[in-house]
Formats: sequence, C-alpha cells, structure tokens
Amino acid sequence: MNKQAILHIQDSQYCYAVSPHTVQLMIRCAAGDTFDSVSVIYGNKYDYYKKRKKSSMAPEFCDGGYVYYTARLKIKDVRFVYIFKLVINGEVWYFSEDGLTKTYNYKLAYYNSFQLPYINYADIIETVDWMKSAVFYEIFIDRFCRADFAKDGGYINLKWGDIPNPGSFAGGDLCGVTSKLDYLKKLGVNALYLTPVFKSVSNHKYDISDYFEVDEMFGGKEALARLIKEAHARGIKIVLDAVFNHCSENLAQFKDVLKNGKKSPYFGWFIIDGDEIGEDRANYEYFSLCKYMPKFNTSNPEVQNFLNEIATYWIREFDIDGWRLDVADEVSHDYWRSFRKAVKAAKPDCVILGENWHDARPYLCGDQFDGIMNYALTKACTDYFIGGTLDARGFADRLGGLYVRNTEQTNFMMLNLLDNHDTHRFYTLAHGDINKLICALAVIYMHTGAPCVYYGTEVPLEGGYDPDCRRTMVWEGKKSALLKRIIARLGAIRKKKEIAAGKISFGERDGMFVLERTLKNKIRLTVNNRAGAPFAAEGKVLLSHNFADGILARGGFVIEAVKGG
Amino acid sequence: MNKQAILHIQDSQYCYAVSPHTVQLMIRCAAGDTFDSVSVIYGNKYDYYKKRKKSSMAPEFCDGGYVYYTARLKIKDVRFVYIFKLVINGEVWYFSEDGLTKTYNYKLAYYNSFQLPYINYADIIETVDWMKSAVFYEIFIDRFCRADFAKDGGYINLKWGDIPNPGSFAGGDLCGVTSKLDYLKKLGVNALYLTPVFKSVSNHKYDISDYFEVDEMFGGKEALARLIKEAHARGIKIVLDAVFNHCSENLAQFKDVLKNGKKSPYFGWFIIDGDEIGEDRANYEYFSLCKYMPKFNTSNPEVQNFLNEIATYWIREFDIDGWRLDVADEVSHDYWRSFRKAVKAAKPDCVILGENWHDARPYLCGDQFDGIMNYALTKACTDYFIGGTLDARGFADRLGGLYVRNTEQTNFMMLNLLDNHDTHRFYTLAHGDINKLICALAVIYMHTGAPCVYYGTEVPLEGGYDPDCRRTMVWEGKKSALLKRIIARLGAIRKKKEIAAGKISFGERDGMFVLERTLKNKIRLTVNNRAGAPFAAEGKVLLSHNFADGILARGGFVIEAVKGG
Repeated sequence: MNKQAILHIQDSQYCYAVSPHTVQLMIRCAAGDTFDSVSVIYGNKYDYYKKRKKSSMAPEFCDGGYVYYTARLKIKDVRFVYIFKLVINGEVWYFSEDGLTKTYNYKLAYYNSFQLPYINYADIIETVDWMKSAVFYEIFIDRFCRADFAKDGGYINLKWGDIPNPGSFAGGDLCGVTSKLDYLKKLGVNALYLTPVFKSVSNHKYDISDYFEVDEMFGGKEALARLIKEAHARGIKIVLDAVFNHCSENLAQFKDVLKNGKKSPYFGWFIIDGDEIGEDRANYEYFSLCKYMPKFNTSNPEVQNFLNEIATYWIREFDIDGWRLDVADEVSHDYWRSFRKAVKAAKPDCVILGENWHDARPYLCGDQFDGIMNYALTKACTDYFIGGTLDARGFADRLGGLYVRNTEQTNFMMLNLLDNHDTHRFYTLAHGDINKLICALAVIYMHTGAPCVYYGTEVPLEGGYDPDCRRTMVWEGKKSALLKRIIARLGAIRKKKEIAAGKISFGERDGMFVLERTLKNKIRLTVNNRAGAPFAAEGKVLLSHNFADGILARGGFVIEAVKGG
Repeated sequence: MNKQAILHIQDSQYCYAVSPHTVQLMIRCAAGDTFDSVSVIYGNKYDYYKKRKKSSMAPEFCDGGYVYYTARLKIKDVRFVYIFKLVINGEVWYFSEDGLTKTYNYKLAYYNSFQLPYINYADIIETVDWMKSAVFYEIFIDRFCRADFAKDGGYINLKWGDIPNPGSFAGGDLCGVTSKLDYLKKLGVNALYLTPVFKSVSNHKYDISDYFEVDEMFGGKEALARLIKEAHARGIKIVLDAVFNHCSENLAQFKDVLKNGKKSPYFGWFIIDGDEIGEDRANYEYFSLCKYMPKFNTSNPEVQNFLNEIATYWIREFDIDGWRLDVADEVSHDYWRSFRKAVKAAKPDCVILGENWHDARPYLCGDQFDGIMNYALTKACTDYFIGGTLDARGFADRLGGLYVRNTEQTNFMMLNLLDNHDTHRFYTLAHGDINKLICALAVIYMHTGAPCVYYGTEVPLEGGYDPDCRRTMVWEGKKSALLKRIIARLGAIRKKKEIAAGKISFGERDGMFVLERTLKNKIRLTVNNRAGAPFAAEGKVLLSHNFADGILARGGFVIEAVKGG
C-alpha cells in the first residue's frame, strides 16, 4: 500500500453535506493499490465510543495516479464523526486524524477521529435549480447583431464581415440580441451570458465608467429592459458580466482621485503607492498591463457597498438572472462573501459564476460563488481533441481529477465552455476539423454543469486570439446546418433528467472515451478520436455523428439511452 | 520518487500571504525521497510566460511520513503564479495543477500553473498582537476562590476541600478571582480565561438563561466590571466563554417555544422536528445528550443578530479582551463569519478562540477564528509523556504534522493546554509524576501560541474526569514552591522575542526531544523522557529541571539561549 498517497480532508469536497441529513464522503488512495475493502466507520460524536455503523466505499473516480473511493450516507443524528478502515492483502489499517494506524481506540476518538461536527443548513452548498438544465450562449454584443438603426452609428468603424482589430466597433446592440431570441431558442439555448453592457468607451466594455447606465452604443437601459422581458417570455435567462476587479480610468471616482490625490474621498477605493497618482501612472494597481483599468480596492467596505449597490440594482430593477464575475480571482474573498449575501437576498436563484481559470475551490465552499467558468475542462478538451497529449484513458483520467476538485453541488453549477472572447476559437485551434468541434460539444453538453456555446460556434466562425475571436457574426455557413441540428439536439438531450441530475462517470472502452450519466437509467456518450472502430450500441441511440454500420469513425460520437443505469 | 505523496493546495496553509507583499509556500513530499533540489518558479501572472524567478525551498517540517519544503518570498507584484521544480537523481520534474510532468509549457500557464492571484489585505490572516506574549490561566469560577461573603450563600452545598459531584456549589466568585490577581501576576499570568459567568442555575454555567446578566452567585455585573478594571490595571487580559451553540431550557425564548410551539416568534431559533416540542423532549436538537441545553439554530439570521448583540455588548460595556467559543465546531460557519465581523468591528484586538478538538482549518482561514484550544497538542503531550506511544522522534513528528495544519499566523494564535475542565488533569494522568508535568509545561510554554495553565496546576491539584477535575482550589502543596517557580520562570522566558515571534522547529537528539525557536538568536528546549542522558549545553542555560553535571535525567529539561540562531 502506498501509505503516503492516502488523503482525506475534513469539511471539504472530501466530506460535505448534500442535504440536511445526507453526507458525501471520499478518500483518496494510490491507483496501484488493490484493496480487499475500503469502508467508513461512523456514528454520533457523543456515543461513538460505544455505537458505530459501517458502510463500504466504492471506487468512483480515478485520475491516473489516484483512485477516489466514495460513499453517500443518510444520517439521522448530524453530529457526525468517522474514521476509515482499509483492508489490503488481509491486513487491516485505520485512517484517522492520526494517520494510518494498525489499531484504533474509539474511546479517544474525541481527539482524533474525523468529523463533520454538525450540518447547519446555512453551510450546505446550495444550487440554482434552473442551472441544471441550462444551455448558455455567450454573446459579445458589438459583434453579434445590429438591429437598432435609429441610434447614432457614428462610432462604428468596422464593416460587418471585416476582420476586427482591438479598436473596432461593428455596431452590434441589445436590440440585435432581442431580434435573435427565437433563433437562439430554436438552437436549444435557454440562457445568455452577455459580455459587459454598461457605459464604456471600448467595444468590449470591460473598462466601465458608469455601472448604473447601459451604454448607448448598445441601446441604453430601455433596450436591456426589453431584451430581458422578451427573453423571459421565452424562458431564456440573462446573465450579465460584473467587472468588479477594476473599472475605467473614466469612472468619476477614479477621476476624482487623479485630480485630488489623497484629498479625494475615493482615494482609498484604489490601491495607490504614495499620496497621489503619478504622471507616469506607475504607482497604482491596475488590471493586467492596462493602466486605463484601475483596480478597485475590494478590501475597502465603501467599495464593497458601492459594488453591492450595482449588483442588486440590476437584479431589483431589471430582474437579471445571474452575474458572471470578471477576473473573479483577483478580487478579495471578503468582498465575494458580502456580494453573495447581497445578491442571494435580492434574488435567491440569481446565479454567481466566477471567471477562474484555475482550481477555484476556495471560492466554491458555498460562501462565495455557485460555479466558475470551467476552463480546466476547456483545456482538457483541447489536449484530447486537438493537442494529442491525452488519449481516451488520459482524457477520462483528467476529467476524473477535475471532478474531485469540487463538491457535487458545485460540479452541477459549472459553466462549460470550449472557447470564448478570451481564447482562440476551438474550431480554429482544430484547424477546421468540424468533427472535433462536434465531439467536443457533445462532451460539454453531457458533462455536469451548463454548456456555454460561444456565438458563432454554430456557423462555425473562425477566430484566433483576441481580437480575432471577436469577429462579426455570420448566420449561415457551409457546415452550419449540420452544426445547428446537432447543437439543438444536444440541447434537447441536456434537458433529460439523467443529464440534469444524474451522477457522472468517465471511462475508456476500446480506445474510445466514454462518459455516462446515471440516475435511474443511463445516458452514455461514446467518443472516438482515432481511426474508425467497431462500436456495439447497447441502448437506444439518441444522437450520433459519424456512426454507421456499427463503426464509429474518427471524430464520431454516439449518445445512447441505456435502461436501468 | 513517491509521486503520489506530493501535495500542494493553493490558497491554503500551503500558499498564503503573511503580509501584503510576502508569501509563504509549502510543498509536501514523501519522507523517504531525497531530492537534489526543490524549488519554486514564480512570477507575475501577466508576463509569466516570459519572465520568471526561481527560489529554492528547504525542508522545514517533517511528520514521519512526509517532509514539508517551504520558502518565504518577498514579491512586489502580487499577482502571483508559480509551479514547483523537483530534481531527484538528476531527473527533473515539474509540479503544477496538471500534476507531475517532465516538461512544462509556460505559454499555457494561465491554464494550469498554481496561483495566489492577488493579495487583498482583507484576506490576509491577522493576528492579535498581545496573544504573542500571552500566558493564560483558566479559572472554573465556582471552585477557585470565594471573596464575597456578603452575598447570599444559601446555594453553596460543598465544603471547600471536599470532592465535588456534578451538583456541587463551592461558592467561588469573581471577587475571589480579583483577590488573586496579584498572585496570578506573580505566577507570570497575563490573561485569564474564565468559564461562563452569565446567569445560569448550574455550577459550570454552560446552560445560560440570561446572556446579559452576570450570575449573582459570581457577584453580578459589578463584580465582573471590577475584576476587569483591576485585571487591566495589572496588564491582565480577560477572555470570557461564549456558549453560543446552545442555551439553557430556562432561556426566555426557549420557554416561549415550549409554551407556544410554532406560534412562538422564537420557534425558528431552535431546531425542532414538528410543530411543538413534545412532552418527552425527544424532537428538538440539544447539546450532547443534555435535553436541558437546547441547541440554537445558528443558521437563522435572527439568532445570529441576538448572539452578535451579546458578543458586542460585553466588549462595549465591559471591555473584555476575547471570547472562547464553546462547542465552536457545531455552530454554523455562516454565523462565525458574521460573529467575527461584529467582534472585530467592536474591538479589533479582541481574540476569538474556538473550542475545537479536531483539525479546525476550515474555521481558521481568517474569516472565522483567530485560534483554537490546541487539544491536538494536549493529546501529543499525553502520548509522549504519559501514554508511551510516542518516543522523542515520534513526538517531534507529531508536532510537525500538527504545525502544518495551519498558517503561521494561526499557529501563533493557538491556546495550548495540558488539561482543563473537560479532561482529566495531566498530573493525575501522569500518576503524580511531577517531572512529567513540569516537562510538558515547558513544551506548551515554548511552543507557538499561548500556554494556558488550568487553575491548580501550580499546586498541583489532582483530578480525574469531570467533575473531579473541578475540585476546589488549594493554594499550597508539597510541590507547589517548585512548580510556581518554574511556571513563573517559563512565563518570563515566554516573553522573550524568540518565543513571541520566532520560527519553530521540532527534532530529536540522542533520544531527547528538541524544540527550537529562532529569530535572530535561538532558544532551545531539550526534554528527556527516559533514563538520564549526557547533555552538552551549547548556550546559556535559562532554565533547567533535573539537570546536573551535564546529565539530563528522566523528566528533565533544559532551556538554553544560543547565539546566532
């Protein structure tokens, strides 16, 4: 047994409540070790020394190096303490806070057992129900559709269809989005993530100068109100972009600091080294390398109140359904806790999705975000489908490893994307291999969490790194009929209860990647990323691509419904 | 290399800010692996692909199974990303979010490096300055000293000196504590932790019926005010016991629920299965097995407000210096976050110490407690000094393993105890071996965190499990002169800057346990727990016990000051 491989962390994704009387448990062991049995011995803290239950644990996830054994326990008394019992080659080991021991003294368990000492409902990670069947579509507004021809179009400097540069304005607006709602609904979309809409001089509007106004380029507040009304009438949710890490140099409060230095009441809103901002603009904190995007001091309670005012204003007055948090990981945890309280008080099912490219567990303990943009899944898809650095087994292992980063609740709140306005388009990275795009879409639709399709994927649009990935929308392409049909069909399957609520597993069969979602029955996705291989369908085929005569070709997939998961 | 032993967790005790521009890093490896080098390769997130620094890491802690390599980095740009480089037998490995790899592509680091993405000051774990040289003394008030002879003593049913039973009242009061302040100061004590003082029918007062009154048995509010004034005049801090997990069945709000069931406005303050509390009292939640101690529903915002009112009232009106949180781990995290905000707003250096018997990292991330009662250290001391299940090396390893559970800041905020009102007395467990008690005291005084001496340790009092560990105080004993001298001397050494602020290390030398505290110079504690062994002092001996002619006898220790740590 590889003793040092064994890991368990209390009150984490390794042990948490999924409901007031249900605990989910996990222990990590080395992949190479074959156990006779792995079990948990648990009870009520106050009589554990004399009364205990035992439940066996089964290997559920694997990431190549480790196997993760899990168990779900229904418990009446929620003063929950436990240790693990591992049997290997007939040898018994106990695993507690004291590590691996050959014996365990239950009479001293109050010192060294593991525990989830009480399930208080305020600490249970909650989910947003509608997210479980959500299909997102991300729109970069300036490039999607222009429908307002009454507005002053003087700012527009890019002809629709031309390749954009960083300073391009193509004229897309919120009326344009509204005009395409039926198109999107047909595509199976029921939630939109819109890049920022607030007042800003740029095309992307990640440098906001007034958080209480919708930019006139996009049609102002009226256009937003109408979009939300029309979207809601069609069962489509609207998630806006909260750029709270930084603002524009044109924000009134920052301008006041530029002018008055330390005398400004807003001096403490930013992070400045010295008593004023120097002429070279080198002594204050800003986003990335962009001095025109001064960073907010989100440790400051005044800034926190200001941002919470924004966060709740758009819920209260416009009934938005969620916030995507820009550069979420550079903002203080302290602020995000306050933000969550404010947002959830205003609208309990308003979803909170962080832009976190890395393992974001510290933000996902229930007190901050519901989910994040699942860039780690993005990377896994490019590694498997495009980079060739992962084979089917490696892809399954990678996804297994990513899954155990978070609780089940959180995994259902992820936003799964192949690309967006900050990355190359997947199709372009795949050198125009449409089959890779289709198979990768099948993966993000079948995975826990909501898929998020970047506008134009259905055409598909080409696009390298920013600004190339922000090209103007085209409504038809040579392959768009196929893509739209598959995306719509994936959207319909996504609504099935196995996908909305079922457990997930990742595996490999005959060199092909297999993802299963199991509730009572099972829906299975099989993907082939190599030469055509024989494939024996076991259930009813719901959707397939490049599959004929029992052969699943390279770049093909099959989704089947299998009875009795 | 044991690949599966390697562990790093972002934004945790493995990577955190100790100040606005200082990061503390740690990586865990198998104890058996000998690395040519371990280093961290770090930089600013936004140009990491082209500009990086490297810093070597050194093994700092060890727990038997693992070695923990650490580094402390001063960084200017706090958008901090990093990976580890491990070299073993000439072979190079990189360790990132993708695990161990033979190569690493820095151009894709935005997907899979580790990160501490920004140091926001609101997220830096703060310490309470006075804790760094605090020496605590815990008083169980009914048993310590009676000085108020004007009060109605009709409730007293135990003769001072007799052995208590669970229903005994001996008459100790707050005036009694005040009368002993000079005695305590002489003993080197500068902080008192008092068991509950609020209105309650019991001798222990962990079942409180009015949180805004001091019990008349203890002298009422006036006696508390006078104690605090006199204590502060002597530089002694006062920490009270916050019993917020549960109350007494006599609390007005609970009585209202007993009477009115669901119609009571306080129904939601408790956790009740059904519409009223049944006659058998089996359908509501209470502490342990005690139905007379109904559990608060600390998920309820009304309860949270009520408790915060209590928490701040005693700070505002009585200027207390801290709260010890009873049964802290069964109260919701959500409430403790709110509690911390309220308490720290009222008095920033009011210390918050949880009663947590287990690994309490989830409470110690900076948003909840400052420290906990260090029961894991208690257990380690009994295992080493009394149980014989640990030798010197095992003790050093255990302490190393406990230390890496938390950040450095948290380790300085621990309350280190050998025993208290909920355990056997250490001296009794040690079968009256005074040397074991003395050596164990030396350990908790030299460790990071504040030592907490249970009243009577200096006599020493005998005491088995509750209620025996709550005997009435005796002021002199056969061994009290020796004990008091050593405790006072340890208290003086505790104030030295190496102990207040120095790094800690644990080791073994010639079968003896060695604990070192290093700042510029070093203070070293060497403990012998076996037969007399030759001991070569290297520095100036500050204090010793059972040490003569260069021989450190069983149950002896030496504390030396060594130049140039």
